[in-house]
Amino acid sequence: MRIAIIGAGPSGLAALRAFESARKSGVEIPELVCYEKQSDWGGLWNYTWRTGLDEFGEPVHGSMYRYLWSNGPKECLEFADYSFEEHFGRPIPSYPPRAVLHDYIAGRVAKSGVRPYVKFNHAARGISFDPATKLFTVKVQDLKNDNLLTETFDYVIVASGHFSIPNVPEFPGLNKFPGRVLHAHDFRDANEFVGKDVLLIGSSYSAEDIGIQCYKYGAKSITFSYRTKPMGFHWPEGFKEVPLLTKVEGRTAHFADGTSKEVDAIVLCTGYLHHFPFIDDDLRLKTRNRLYPPNLYKGVFWQGNPKMIYIGMQDQYYTFNMFDAQAWYARDVILGRLKLPGAAERQSDIDKWLGYEAKVENPEQGIDFQTEYVRNLLGPVDYPRLNVDEVARLFKEWEHHKEEGILTYRDRSYPSTLTGNMAPVHHTPWMQALDDSLEAFLEEPLPALREA
Amino acid sequence: MRIAIIGAGPSGLAALRAFESARKSGVEIPELVCYEKQSDWGGLWNYTWRTGLDEFGEPVHGSMYRYLWSNGPKECLEFADYSFEEHFGRPIPSYPPRAVLHDYIAGRVAKSGVRPYVKFNHAARGISFDPATKLFTVKVQDLKNDNLLTETFDYVIVASGHFSIPNVPEFPGLNKFPGRVLHAHDFRDANEFVGKDVLLIGSSYSAEDIGIQCYKYGAKSITFSYRTKPMGFHWPEGFKEVPLLTKVEGRTAHFADGTSKEVDAIVLCTGYLHHFPFIDDDLRLKTRNRLYPPNLYKGVFWQGNPKMIYIGMQDQYYTFNMFDAQAWYARDVILGRLKLPGAAERQSDIDKWLGYEAKVENPEQGIDFQTEYVRNLLGPVDYPRLNVDEVARLFKEWEHHKEEGILTYRDRSYPSTLTGNMAPVHHTPWMQALDDSLEAFLEEPLPALREA
Repeated sequence: MRIAIIGAGPSGLAALRAFESARKSGVEIPELVCYEKQSDWGGLWNYTWRTGLDEFGEPVHGSMYRYLWSNGPKECLEFADYSFEEHFGRPIPSYPPRAVLHDYIAGRVAKSGVRPYVKFNHAARGISFDPATKLFTVKVQDLKNDNLLTETFDYVIVASGHFSIPNVPEFPGLNKFPGRVLHAHDFRDANEFVGKDVLLIGSSYSAEDIGIQCYKYGAKSITFSYRTKPMGFHWPEGFKEVPLLTKVEGRTAHFADGTSKEVDAIVLCTGYLHHFPFIDDDLRLKTRNRLYPPNLYKGVFWQGNPKMIYIGMQDQYYTFNMFDAQAWYARDVILGRLKLPGAAERQSDIDKWLGYEAKVENPEQGIDFQTEYVRNLLGPVDYPRLNVDEVARLFKEWEHHKEEGILTYRDRSYPSTLTGNMAPVHHTPWMQALDDSLEAFLEEPLPALREA
Repeated sequence: MRIAIIGAGPSGLAALRAFESARKSGVEIPELVCYEKQSDWGGLWNYTWRTGLDEFGEPVHGSMYRYLWSNGPKECLEFADYSFEEHFGRPIPSYPPRAVLHDYIAGRVAKSGVRPYVKFNHAARGISFDPATKLFTVKVQDLKNDNLLTETFDYVIVASGHFSIPNVPEFPGLNKFPGRVLHAHDFRDANEFVGKDVLLIGSSYSAEDIGIQCYKYGAKSITFSYRTKPMGFHWPEGFKEVPLLTKVEGRTAHFADGTSKEVDAIVLCTGYLHHFPFIDDDLRLKTRNRLYPPNLYKGVFWQGNPKMIYIGMQDQYYTFNMFDAQAWYARDVILGRLKLPGAAERQSDIDKWLGYEAKVENPEQGIDFQTEYVRNLLGPVDYPRLNVDEVARLFKEWEHHKEEGILTYRDRSYPSTLTGNMAPVHHTPWMQALDDSLEAFLEEPLPALREA
């Protein structure tokens, strides 16, 4: 039996880790082939200065920017089988920068020895299913050798993410705006916007975080333009929330409330597409970003063909440990430990979750929804115990902390749900922490600095 | 008989126009289906503010920037079957801005009535050949409806261009450069660089033209960094040519001669890839940018399977009218008017041209090479007479004019090789012509302005 895994980011690595942990417990596992477009694993958690297309002419996967720090407590995403304390040898603060999270993700899988399963610099080109042979045909491009490979598999696990292909709407006048227009996907370095009036379109995490970043590194003003409603945080001087951009004339941005603002740069924080140009119509997930994408039993198994498996396609409160829950469940179905019900029963389960999702009205309810979803997945599998109720409590605390101080919430600490240990306070308040390197984050504070 | 044409830029439109002109003369022509990824025809000559990925998540085709004016005389690219005078009703100056050239390209094909052949917003996904049926299978994505279509064809004409997928090398330190790093492909508006010290890596047309643009619109300084040799034009104050970038430290760019320069932005003018991720290995052209890409008989027919046809894949002095010459030749082979020789004879012809190409040592010889190539294609076809010797003479004059004044060569005029009429001098010297619209270019000068 052969399994193709598309992508070696947190979701694909969860799948590798799930099988490998079964193998280590003595179970015979199928042949795994993980195709990764990038030259290293870690998915979005790799940083690259590249934007647009990469060295092989492929769309750059990364949406990561310099100086990105986790925007949620690390205690909410901790792997139940690999604590931060195990990786770093001691408790670390709750909001690590990118490099620290990348190190943590990579550390687990390096330790697991799954790297040989991954073919790097291989981009998926086509996935189709032959009902006669009951096999998937997977075409991938070996980017370094510029060869197209065609292989067959019994299962396909799509773990290529959905925060990689930007959703880029048009606004009248953008084609003549004399400054830079970019999507959040192509944002790299806040220093580019020092002294500038920056307009961000959107009111979700990208707008919030990139706006704060630009302010932190010296932008002159930050204007957020929302479609539905403002984020409503207690913004300090220099920030403003305005209704949707209606048009741009020269450098002047006009908004739906009739106000206007001269701006130097426009960042479209308008979300991402679930985009799978390499998957045949009958196997392809089509969805907006939501807590329960349709046609996926358990949020994972493609209803039209449950040997087609998607991991990590949900809108996310839970991240790494949810991908693990999905991967463990998918693994156990593939290994025959869990039996999938028939199509009708699967559909009725999907409908039940969709009905629940429809009732979600606010972030707290969204957290509760996803908590139940993860709990449901974890029930029958041997993933180490994850206290999802405690994770949910931390998520809600985090939401409150953001409301209390959007520039200071990253200075908070939370206890690990695995070890119970409280995270230490970081040596530098986040707004003053301009160096986001792993070394700067992990170094013990110098006593002199601590006094100052 | 069915023919797929990939792309509705100048090369794909040449193919449509070639067949349509045969049809109008009473010949029965095959069914033509042209798949165009963009929402309009014109290829690179469309302008979009978008960079990276487009509204459908597809790589943006356009490398076009605002304020781009032709960098060669329009008299060298004039269609022999459709003069500028026919399109605009009168002679116009020799170096038109983008919108004017787009209008000219589109005008010819609109008049020809070929638009119904084009399926817009359709991206090629896969091209393969079945030796048993002798048919090509072409997979295309209908981007608006998000459906994958599979159709079969007798011939495929690939006309998707090769100035669309950037070649983006790595340089040490780019990952920490605190300003903007971009490839020329993503350059859009020189106004973004007003007052800035701009570094351009490269010494070909992109570097030359984008550097001049930035200077024209108010950049503080322009530094060109070359790998092999400088462009060597008589640069005015504010320009400098230095050897290759070796590394970047903070804002400081270091060069191979030991010098360094503080810069605000880095534009990688490092060329483009021939990139056809949608073509099977056995049909796919692999080449760098050169006057005679290998394995193409007459520069057009894929040696391994001559029903696979490539148009416009050459490094170019000649452009639109060379694509026409290729399209007319390909059309006549498809229509059976011209007979392809056997594989050995084709290979020997390819080798002859490669031998000639190897002897080309400078631009003048390159112009002569491509003149002979175009003359060779035109010999047996019914494309209206194109005086390639006169075109070659104009190309050489253009080269001299660039050497005489890199900021003033666009103020020159040349005679049409079709009508013999000398182009009028533009109403505004190019360095003062900041408005690049069609309207501004075509308007008669106001007498008051002329005096001033």
